[in-house]
Amino acid sequence: MSAILYLTTVEFDPGAIRTLPEVLARLGVKRPLIVSDHGLAAAGLLDGVAALCPAGTPRFLDVPTNPTEAAVAAALAAYRGGGCDGIVAMGGGSPIDLAKGVALLATHDGLLERYAAILGGLPLIGPVAPVIAIPTTSGTGSEVGRAALLTLNDGRKLGFISPHLIPKWAICDPELTLGLPPGLTAATGLDALSHCIETLLSPRYNPPAEAIALDGAGRIWRNLERAVRMGRDREARTELMMGALEGGLTFQKGLGAVHALSHALGGLKDVSLHHGTLNAILLPPVLRFNAGHAGDKYQRLKAAMGLPESVDLADEIASLNTRLGIPAGLRTLGVRADVLPWAVERALADHSHATNPREATAEDYHAMLDEVMV
Amino acid sequence: MSAILYLTTVEFDPGAIRTLPEVLARLGVKRPLIVSDHGLAAAGLLDGVAALCPAGTPRFLDVPTNPTEAAVAAALAAYRGGGCDGIVAMGGGSPIDLAKGVALLATHDGLLERYAAILGGLPLIGPVAPVIAIPTTSGTGSEVGRAALLTLNDGRKLGFISPHLIPKWAICDPELTLGLPPGLTAATGLDALSHCIETLLSPRYNPPAEAIALDGAGRIWRNLERAVRMGRDREARTELMMGALEGGLTFQKGLGAVHALSHALGGLKDVSLHHGTLNAILLPPVLRFNAGHAGDKYQRLKAAMGLPESVDLADEIASLNTRLGIPAGLRTLGVRADVLPWAVERALADHSHATNPREATAEDYHAMLDEVMV
Repeated sequence: MSAILYLTTVEFDPGAIRTLPEVLARLGVKRPLIVSDHGLAAAGLLDGVAALCPAGTPRFLDVPTNPTEAAVAAALAAYRGGGCDGIVAMGGGSPIDLAKGVALLATHDGLLERYAAILGGLPLIGPVAPVIAIPTTSGTGSEVGRAALLTLNDGRKLGFISPHLIPKWAICDPELTLGLPPGLTAATGLDALSHCIETLLSPRYNPPAEAIALDGAGRIWRNLERAVRMGRDREARTELMMGALEGGLTFQKGLGAVHALSHALGGLKDVSLHHGTLNAILLPPVLRFNAGHAGDKYQRLKAAMGLPESVDLADEIASLNTRLGIPAGLRTLGVRADVLPWAVERALADHSHATNPREATAEDYHAMLDEVMV
Repeated sequence: MSAILYLTTVEFDPGAIRTLPEVLARLGVKRPLIVSDHGLAAAGLLDGVAALCPAGTPRFLDVPTNPTEAAVAAALAAYRGGGCDGIVAMGGGSPIDLAKGVALLATHDGLLERYAAILGGLPLIGPVAPVIAIPTTSGTGSEVGRAALLTLNDGRKLGFISPHLIPKWAICDPELTLGLPPGLTAATGLDALSHCIETLLSPRYNPPAEAIALDGAGRIWRNLERAVRMGRDREARTELMMGALEGGLTFQKGLGAVHALSHALGGLKDVSLHHGTLNAILLPPVLRFNAGHAGDKYQRLKAAMGLPESVDLADEIASLNTRLGIPAGLRTLGVRADVLPWAVERALADHSHATNPREATAEDYHAMLDEVMV
């Protein structure tokens, strides 16, 4: 087992899931709540994890694609009803983010809104209930990230950010991703790539994060198509999971316009949009907008990804999207033109807006969205 | 200010030292002990830090080049006598490592030996007194590292390793290094380079650490000569301090034969040897020994350092040593041939021995030492 200690302790290895009982013991968690979703239950992954937890461990599976305040409240009731003292969160970003919300409200008073980053919540967040994160996609990075994205009852999708929200332990087992369908592999993989690219482009000074982001971008670029086409390729799955972990390790440097817009669109009530798919669609227009405003970072990215210096990065990602079957644009996903002004307003208020390398105005965001309203 | 959160929280910026009062408050330290050395006091750096601490803050300055069990005991008496609740450690690796020893024994019973990594001490180390580390050299990485190297009363220089020994906060202020003399700049810079190289070569799986190590090696290589020749060059000093920090961030992956040997030689009683100087001298023979046993890592290192693929890495470092005025070899430093068998035995028992990419026998260590007995 490779113990990797950065923001959290990470067990990273094929078969690492078997360390769960030991991790529970190390963290002193006697009665965990499993937070996962019905898809993973149907795929049989849930039973594998439940077998490693104490008999009768309660489960909460009603996790929406974009986790909501209401779902956090329901899971919190299950946590309290079960007399729980920690959470085992297994899945993509949705169950892990929801688990962070539960861990927060299990230990902090008041409504969720109070703790939102953009509303000054960071200093109000102290130690929370321990979360053990077990990713089953290679995308979110939430297993080592400080943020949870949760949609409030009024539709705002807000970031909750604190070092205390970092899972106490992450178990990254590439074997859990072998059965991930091609479509989800592609969308989550492009989510991970967007993390590496946006944190690299963020103007904050953090050379270690940039070094990790470049390494992650290269790993994802070299292996994503292979993992989409040959889902059971262990090497590609391992590389992809490491790339996603590396994306998560660099979050602290701040994201950018891709995430400002995808957080906004992810808060739409009438249509449920996949975060990774949104990021994949938004990457090309944002990269075109940022071109020329990021020093030598486009060159460094292309070098890390093994691309010739002469190619256009935005075009390369647009082509990859097409090859991987990512939907052509927002209209295809069911986004109506009349919600765009609301989305732009939300993007301007998002915590990722400030770390885009080029300041975006409302007009700029409109132009980027128009480009992908196909 | 750039807050960098990896193993510890790092304030990294010219002028970052001014954050010390805030850091003390954040950590709840009301009565710190300052641990530093007489050289820094003479250079005037100590007064600057003391002015940022509560009035009457006690100081411990009698830190040997290779901190000893006896010095830890003396500092611990000062800590207890002053009713202290935390440590501000300012200096190179020696005061910071000594501070870690004090923080450990202030909170743990028994003799130091009990907690040595090689003697199974890791699981015995729980939370320790808070240490705020303020490096004044760009070398040790101890400000973010989990290890303290301390020489026991019987002469063994042992590693004490635990995530709990990571300083709670590091304040990395390149301005504190502007006055570092050329000789110490060179020796500490080569120490940092040896960290980046040895952790990269370590066979453990940790891609984020490798990415950071490569970035650090490149920064140090590009700036060390400049900082040695023009000590007040702020940009070179900043790059060097970041390279040293990056070296420290990668320690967790394990070091190798350079450190196994330098830890051994650093424990010699009749001659006091500088750790960085030893590492500089030992790098070329160890790189020759490891050549061909590290996959493509020599190529990746040369690329990161901006060196042509055709050059010999060991030769390049030997030439740099010469240009920077590093002493030619161990004999020049006063090491007698009759201590070498003892040193080889200690190297074989060192915690860094196991993560060298090629297993070294006693004969191999002898051959490496013979190569630098000039």
